[in-house]
Order: sequence, then structure tokens, then C-alpha cells
Amino acid sequence: MAPGRQVEVYLDLMSQPCRAVHILLDCTRIPHKVRYVALRRGENRTPDFAKLNPMQKVPVLVDHGFILTESDAILKYLASRADVPQHWYPRQPERRARVDEYTAWHHSNTRPHAAKVFMLEVLLPARSGSQVDEERLIRALSQLDDTLDKLETMFLRRQPFLCGDDVTVADLLAVCELMQPLGGGRDVLQARPQLRRWRSKVQAAVGDAFDRAHAVLYDVRDRRKAKL
Amino acid sequence: MAPGRQVEVYLDLMSQPCRAVHILLDCTRIPHKVRYVALRRGENRTPDFAKLNPMQKVPVLVDHGFILTESDAILKYLASRADVPQHWYPRQPERRARVDEYTAWHHSNTRPHAAKVFMLEVLLPARSGSQVDEERLIRALSQLDDTLDKLETMFLRRQPFLCGDDVTVADLLAVCELMQPLGGGRDVLQARPQLRRWRSKVQAAVGDAFDRAHAVLYDVRDRRKAKL
Repeated sequence: MAPGRQVEVYLDLMSQPCRAVHILLDCTRIPHKVRYVALRRGENRTPDFAKLNPMQKVPVLVDHGFILTESDAILKYLASRADVPQHWYPRQPERRARVDEYTAWHHSNTRPHAAKVFMLEVLLPARSGSQVDEERLIRALSQLDDTLDKLETMFLRRQPFLCGDDVTVADLLAVCELMQPLGGGRDVLQARPQLRRWRSKVQAAVGDAFDRAHAVLYDVRDRRKAKL
Repeated sequence: MAPGRQVEVYLDLMSQPCRAVHILLDCTRIPHKVRYVALRRGENRTPDFAKLNPMQKVPVLVDHGFILTESDAILKYLASRADVPQHWYPRQPERRARVDEYTAWHHSNTRPHAAKVFMLEVLLPARSGSQVDEERLIRALSQLDDTLDKLETMFLRRQPFLCGDDVTVADLLAVCELMQPLGGGRDVLQARPQLRRWRSKVQAAVGDAFDRAHAVLYDVRDRRKAKL
């Protein structure tokens, strides 16, 4: 964890949590080497990758022999390095607890609900060649709406970022999930000015790292649009 | 967060994450006052409670005006107090990352899968007066089995506790979830000697705090048994 020490990360930028890790590495200029693992080609199921992470999931961080999985843990570990600005994961106990509170909530709310919309609109039809299941999609959108309501009325009620006055790893995890349905041409924040303002602030805080992480997703969206 | 300062917690001991918080407070002797919130009587939906936690969920911690939700965040916040032994949530970055790795995984694995078994065997039949849906129960048990396999082969493969040589908040979250189906008379670790040894070690590490937190669950099990 010494400043300047290079880390290795295994990522697929079509994966939301991988993008969050990529953005943090990119915009904080942590020296790193990216190894791309194409999930759609099953590269996470090769014997070599399974040896690295028996769960066969990305992202994976390797820091001089220390292997860590789970984006939430990876982001917090990286943000604790001496060369990363403290606002990403504040040391002050109450401010840190706010980040831990959002990330715990995230796993059962923002993550599954946004991911499901993308799965129903893009992944399942692509795999099976069948139409979008409109009934399931309507249910998924309504669950996501409930999550978006809570993001607005609870987390963003009195502050510009999810956990306070500055951007944290919580904002990265959230924004990358909420961008995912864009791969199917759907901006889930379209009718949500407060959340759109928040997204712009996160985007401004991380600069070009945002679009670099999302280039693959933009490409999926554009290729689908061209086909229609 | 000064040592000796009393905190308030809102708990229902039928809730798994509430028991984890209760055990930590009890066995580390953090000065605290418990306010019981009976979920089955809807006490989490009163206007007063909704003012405290708009999510209407337990546990909630109040530390001199600082209100914190989400058991994962509460446990880590409490374990960072100066009067709590460090092993609960180690400060060394790699060891801390191991705890964050398990807790992130927990939210999409141990928690939903063990909770579902209890819901299908106890909660739903009690509410609707109908029989257990055997087909759904078999599916839920198979998902839980997959989670138990991973706990054994990944987290406990080379160490006595989930995140290393000593008990951490991760073990508390996990053990309280895996105890829950016992309310329906089912010990999900029955055929799992490795996990039973781990549970005994967690129980030994926290002493009588374990049974004090689980007294309400034992009571549910015993009353159901008496009825059959």
C-alpha cells in the first residue's frame, strides 16, 4: 500500500462494479496495470482465472501477492492508500460510517434493481433471441423507481453527493449501476432532475475517467441503435 | 466515540442483523441502552420511528445525535471505538479488507439465502395460515447449500474464522443469519461439521452474549415444537 506501488486489476468494463474500480484508479492516478477479462467469452471460467478467484468473478485486485475480490472492499482498500485523497473514503468515523451505510444498502437496492433492467432489456433477449418480457420489465422498473425515490429523499436530501459534501467511493458504485441500462438505450435518470444533477457532479469530479470507463457501454448502446 | 460513552440502539432480536449488533455491544461491554422495536406489531412503522429512520428498518444506532442505519455500518462504526478490541475490525489494511470482502459478499449470499428458508418455513405459513410451499423451499435450500459450500471452501479453507485467525464482525453477521432457520426447527449446519466447528468457535468467542441474543429465536423454536 505504499504510495507509488503498482497494483494489478482484472476487469471487464461491461461490469458495473469493474467500472467503479477503473474510475477510481484512473482519476486518482494510482499506478496500475489492467488485465481485461471478457465475461461474454467466458474468460472468467478458465482454470487460470479460477485459481486467482475461485468465485470466477470480476473485479479482482492483486497488490503484490495480496488478492482481493468484491468491488466494495477493493475500492475501500485502494482509497486507504496514502497517495489517495481522503475524501474518497473519509477517516473521520461518522463520515466513514455514512459511506459504509450507503454501500451496505447498495447491495440489496441500487445494484440488483438497476442490473435487472439491463438484464431484461439487453442480456436475456440477446442470449435467447426472444422479445423483451414486458411484464417483468414493468415490475423491474417499478422496483428501480422505488430505489431512485430513496436515493433522492434519503441520501441526496440535504447534500450534493450520496454521503456528504464531497464525492466518495459510494457515488462511484451507485453511478456505475445507474448508467448500465443506458446500454439498452434507457436513461433511468431522464425524469429525475435531482439525480441528473448528482450524476453531473460525480462526472465533473472524476473528469475524463468517467467516459473512459463507460466507452464500452456507449458502444453497446450505439450499435443497438444502429441495428433498430 | 469516546470510550465509556453510552449509545442507544433500536433492535428487534428476531432480526438477524439486530442480533449481530446486540452480541457486539454485549460482549465488548460498550455502554448502551436497548430500545426494543417489535416488527411483528409494526412498531417500525410508527411516525416516531419513521422520523428516526425513514427506511423503517432496524437496527438503528444513535450516538449522541448521530443516527446510523445498516448493521454492517453500525458494527464497523462500533468496532472502531477506542474501547473495543481491534480484532473485531482490524486496522491493518489487508486484514480489514478481508472483513470488507466478506461483508460485501454476505449481502447477496448468506443473508438472502438463509433468510428465505426461514421466510418459507415460518413467516409465510404463519401469516397466510397455509402449508409450506415445498417446491420453493427445496429451491431455497439448494441456494443456501451453494452458499454454505462457498463459506467452507473459500472463507474457512485455511483459517478458523471467516476473515482470519480471530473473530470479526463478519462472523457475527454470518452466524446470526445461519441461526435464523432454527426458529423453524431447522439447523442448516447439521450436516456440515466444518461450519459447526466454526459456529462453536464464534459462540465460545462471544460467551453468554450468544444465547442472550438468541433467546427469542430459541423461544420461537420451542413454542413451534410444542404445537406440533
